[in-house]
Amino acid sequence: MKIAILPGDGIGTEITEQAVKVLKALGETFEMESAPVGGAGYEASGHPLPEATLKLAKEADAILFGAVGDWKYDKLERSLRPEQAILGLRKHLGLFANFRPAILYPELAGASTLKPEVVSGLDILIVRELTGDIYFGQPRGMREAPDGPFKGAREGFDTMRYAEPEIRRIAHVAFQAAQKRGKRLTSVDKANVLETFQFWKEIVTEIHAEYPDVELDHMYVDNAAMQLVRAPKKFDVIVTGNMFGDILSDAAAMLTGSIGMLPSASLDANNKGLYEPSHGSAPDIAGKGIANPLATILSAAMMLRYSLNKEEQANRIEAAVKKVLAQGLRTADIYEQGTTKVGTTEMGDAVVKAL
Amino acid sequence: MKIAILPGDGIGTEITEQAVKVLKALGETFEMESAPVGGAGYEASGHPLPEATLKLAKEADAILFGAVGDWKYDKLERSLRPEQAILGLRKHLGLFANFRPAILYPELAGASTLKPEVVSGLDILIVRELTGDIYFGQPRGMREAPDGPFKGAREGFDTMRYAEPEIRRIAHVAFQAAQKRGKRLTSVDKANVLETFQFWKEIVTEIHAEYPDVELDHMYVDNAAMQLVRAPKKFDVIVTGNMFGDILSDAAAMLTGSIGMLPSASLDANNKGLYEPSHGSAPDIAGKGIANPLATILSAAMMLRYSLNKEEQANRIEAAVKKVLAQGLRTADIYEQGTTKVGTTEMGDAVVKAL
Ligand SMILES: CC(C)[C@H](C(=O)O)[C@@H](O)C(=O)O
Ligand SMILES: CC(C)[C@H](C(=O)O)[C@@H](O)C(=O)O
Repeated sequence: MKIAILPGDGIGTEITEQAVKVLKALGETFEMESAPVGGAGYEASGHPLPEATLKLAKEADAILFGAVGDWKYDKLERSLRPEQAILGLRKHLGLFANFRPAILYPELAGASTLKPEVVSGLDILIVRELTGDIYFGQPRGMREAPDGPFKGAREGFDTMRYAEPEIRRIAHVAFQAAQKRGKRLTSVDKANVLETFQFWKEIVTEIHAEYPDVELDHMYVDNAAMQLVRAPKKFDVIVTGNMFGDILSDAAAMLTGSIGMLPSASLDANNKGLYEPSHGSAPDIAGKGIANPLATILSAAMMLRYSLNKEEQANRIEAAVKKVLAQGLRTADIYEQGTTKVGTTEMGDAVVKAL
Repeated sequence: MKIAILPGDGIGTEITEQAVKVLKALGETFEMESAPVGGAGYEASGHPLPEATLKLAKEADAILFGAVGDWKYDKLERSLRPEQAILGLRKHLGLFANFRPAILYPELAGASTLKPEVVSGLDILIVRELTGDIYFGQPRGMREAPDGPFKGAREGFDTMRYAEPEIRRIAHVAFQAAQKRGKRLTSVDKANVLETFQFWKEIVTEIHAEYPDVELDHMYVDNAAMQLVRAPKKFDVIVTGNMFGDILSDAAAMLTGSIGMLPSASLDANNKGLYEPSHGSAPDIAGKGIANPLATILSAAMMLRYSLNKEEQANRIEAAVKKVLAQGLRTADIYEQGTTKVGTTEMGDAVVKAL
């Protein structure tokens, strides 16, 4: 089995290194090959998603991704900026199903900005559609407004669109995920305003008939943003479109206060996937050896489970991470008085030891 | 001066009644005229925004709006549902500038789900563009996908668009609001993905030159959703588009835990405006006499300040509201042990007495 390792920028290199170390320590034989992506791809060959990197990603059975982005690329034109790599990978590989768990580890309950009773034991899963919506909808661009109250003025425009098969497949993924958990699914839309999400709501409702054991409810996106703050534990699985999912999954992640702990998976129709931490490239602390590698290590566990069919090994990694937390080891981002502060490498070593 | 009173549905009638009582107690002469809107408009004349109601709203100098919506209208086709009234009023009256303050009253600090140190003293203002964006952009609808990977399939679609004059005018409003406050403005966009918001960012940056005393920063919407949870007090004024503003302003309101306290204003280019509480019609408690009228009373204060040019009277109402809170009076939604629980009418009476 071949794993593409795409470290990217900022802390990306340090954190993927630890995840690779953990994968190697499992005693399995994985073929692993690295390639530059994001700012590193641009430096190497003038494009954030170099052709060779895309080729490797296509050949591999799974992709472990670090993070991309750095202020030094802010002045590049948009098509050359690091985040285009991640958009390009999603699109080219058809990674339409994004799993973003927001889990609060009991040991880290203090890290949240929310009151302990509101978030303790939080365990929600956001299923975000990742290859459609206004992220990719054509037409888009700059033009003279062709009509409307500002006809003739310069305007920017984008197209939100979802086709029936796109909604169906993400709905199936979400219902099946709910079946394996608390059997409750909340579909988030803005059906009271948007045609796209009126249609979304209809199709999700239709597909519900195939999953009678799952309880489905519908919620407007503004209300969902409120309920995440008010009573996040009421959610089990949330399914939504690409744009709303971008916003809600980050809000949900931040509820835990420990975004350095949260992995993510982006899957295609055959469970091939890209795995990455939910946090960014944190250029401010890059190279200092203090970044938290656990989200990336937990992303590797998700990879074993979803793409490589190694549930047992995934469980081993997750248990090892729980163990190092129980031992009181903490990187700077989750450090609290009374715990032991460790660096990136030490944390990776501790997970290997705990395996 | 003429004020249109549009109570709407659910608790709308009860809460606007209290605000009217407070307005009358000021000792000024306002001409006030009521008309049905939302579900009540539909009952009265088959449309959520009856022609006579729209005419009254156009004639008036300001509009005091309660709330619209009830489950019993859920099965109506979208164009007849209550929320179309509010969209119609915004569009027909050109109410492009929506002010949504999120303020945490010291007496109500306990109501928040966030830790006191994270939210105590919270005072942020969200300026949301309200007549453009994907809310109103044409074309929109259902069709056969004309191109793309799902060509030929049924799809729902909408158009996000912002023209230069639209961005300019809301940016001016936001910079001027920031000048009167902490002189910091955060423009929220998704310029890394959307053409519309790349343009938004450019225009806001350009207009910044006219307001050198205001500090401007730009933030992606997903990050803004995170920062609202992580460190909301870092914000002063936020300006954003209609769709992102819908989501972020509700999230920000919920940070306070007391959405029953939050007013809002929606202004046109001449400071004519519609004033309404940030909360909804709460059909579950309608008619029980327990709804919190303070958000509507505070909306009336905003109306005096922005549309009727009566700053002093606005201040009197706001001081009276603070006084009743200090007296320990609370409606059920903000009740805590050790305070005195009162109903809707009693709360209105208490504000009148405190004037
Ligand atoms: C970097 C950016 C394009 C991306 C997105 O908006 O999808 C990121 O925010 C994410 O959620 O992975
Ligand atoms: C009722 C609905 C159409 C409306 C909106 O989305 O603007 C509401 O959520 C609001 O924020 O006033």
